[in-house]
Amino acid sequence: MVLVSPRNPLNIGAAARAMANFGFRRLTVVAPFAPNWREARSAVGAPEVLLNAAESATMVEAVAGATLVVGTGTLTYRKPEQPVVALPLLAPLVSQEMARGGRIALVFGPEKHGLTREDLSFCHVLVEIPTDPGQPSMNLGQAVAVCLYELAVRVFTTETTPQKLAPGHATPSGRLELLAGVVEEAMEAGGYSPRAMQAANRHDLRLMLRRLTLSEHDTRRILGIFRRILWRLKRTPAGDERSR
Amino acid sequence: MVLVSPRNPLNIGAAARAMANFGFRRLTVVAPFAPNWREARSAVGAPEVLLNAAESATMVEAVAGATLVVGTGTLTYRKPEQPVVALPLLAPLVSQEMARGGRIALVFGPEKHGLTREDLSFCHVLVEIPTDPGQPSMNLGQAVAVCLYELAVRVFTTETTPQKLAPGHATPSGRLELLAGVVEEAMEAGGYSPRAMQAANRHDLRLMLRRLTLSEHDTRRILGIFRRILWRLKRTPAGDERSR
Repeated sequence: MVLVSPRNPLNIGAAARAMANFGFRRLTVVAPFAPNWREARSAVGAPEVLLNAAESATMVEAVAGATLVVGTGTLTYRKPEQPVVALPLLAPLVSQEMARGGRIALVFGPEKHGLTREDLSFCHVLVEIPTDPGQPSMNLGQAVAVCLYELAVRVFTTETTPQKLAPGHATPSGRLELLAGVVEEAMEAGGYSPRAMQAANRHDLRLMLRRLTLSEHDTRRILGIFRRILWRLKRTPAGDERSR
Repeated sequence: MVLVSPRNPLNIGAAARAMANFGFRRLTVVAPFAPNWREARSAVGAPEVLLNAAESATMVEAVAGATLVVGTGTLTYRKPEQPVVALPLLAPLVSQEMARGGRIALVFGPEKHGLTREDLSFCHVLVEIPTDPGQPSMNLGQAVAVCLYELAVRVFTTETTPQKLAPGHATPSGRLELLAGVVEEAMEAGGYSPRAMQAANRHDLRLMLRRLTLSEHDTRRILGIFRRILWRLKRTPAGDERSR
């Protein structure tokens, strides 16, 4: 589980408590507000999961090892750019990913405004807790509890052994970022991206690579192709196109 | 929903917030600790459900109108006297009860020790949230959120119209208490219950009446029988048994 810049020490504690309640062990906190983070960890009875938590400076780093990154948040005020799945329907997705040897990261944003558009661009899918339109926004600790309950009960307790599909085939988020970087460099070198459009293009590229659900094998191949193109482009100065 | 003697104003607020999130409207608070209850209700942004909450002095009164009383809590440290159902399996029970025109009360105990044995004796069934044995006990606000999520998603959003069984047939908790009182009086008048056993017998009787899931019609009949017996017993002084 990943908490991005949580503010309230009570919420951090509650999130960690819910993890302990439902048997989740690995917590990564991204760019926490230092004094609050210290306070949360030093609280009396702080769950072990909090003491063993990893810290990351950036979202990229925090989800680098995950093959399925699931973002959370209220979608009332924004139009999602990724597929959205209602929480009661998340379990099959997660089960399938685990069956093929993948690793899931469930990501929660800060209390006030939730995950940013950039944070969300690292997500393959967004999950929505079905709430009342009159009060859609949930408290962080409660949202965490509800999501982990759902997964604990409907993914990890199913008696059926999941079919092993093609273990190890999923591409971790960090590899996708590497690929995105090379593709972007190629776009730039090829003159595809005017400077003003680069940020927007980077964002769209990130989303697209996650829509593709690439296998590790495909990722390696595409990476090879783009590296070759890039190498070639760099040898050909702009404006000097001998092949024409 | 019923909260029995909640202590922490933040937990009261969190419980009410979860109700608003999942579209539940009726909250009853039993014997709240007055200053904390005032604090919770006067908090900035207190949900409407908190301002409209009912107050009861006793558990009996709070669940009087309910036909299915569902108790919550950790069962790690006590042996339950009622049927226990895991939260993921609660929905069918609640749906069925609603289909026959019943009313459900979901009851949460105080933070520290949960519902007492007496509180539990008013419950038809206990629900258990499946948690990790290493950290079984949940925070109140989070337990409420998880239970209401489960019901909101798996009872109230099912598209299928539930079959109407026999509307109005369930017996509200208050009627069962009335019946228990008459039966107990008869047991006493008949010399069934030695004084030392009266509390234990009352407790067992309460549990038994709830196991029977009596229809309103049956309740009325049994009540009639026991009233008659009681009347008769009272006319026959103890020791003066003319019929022998």
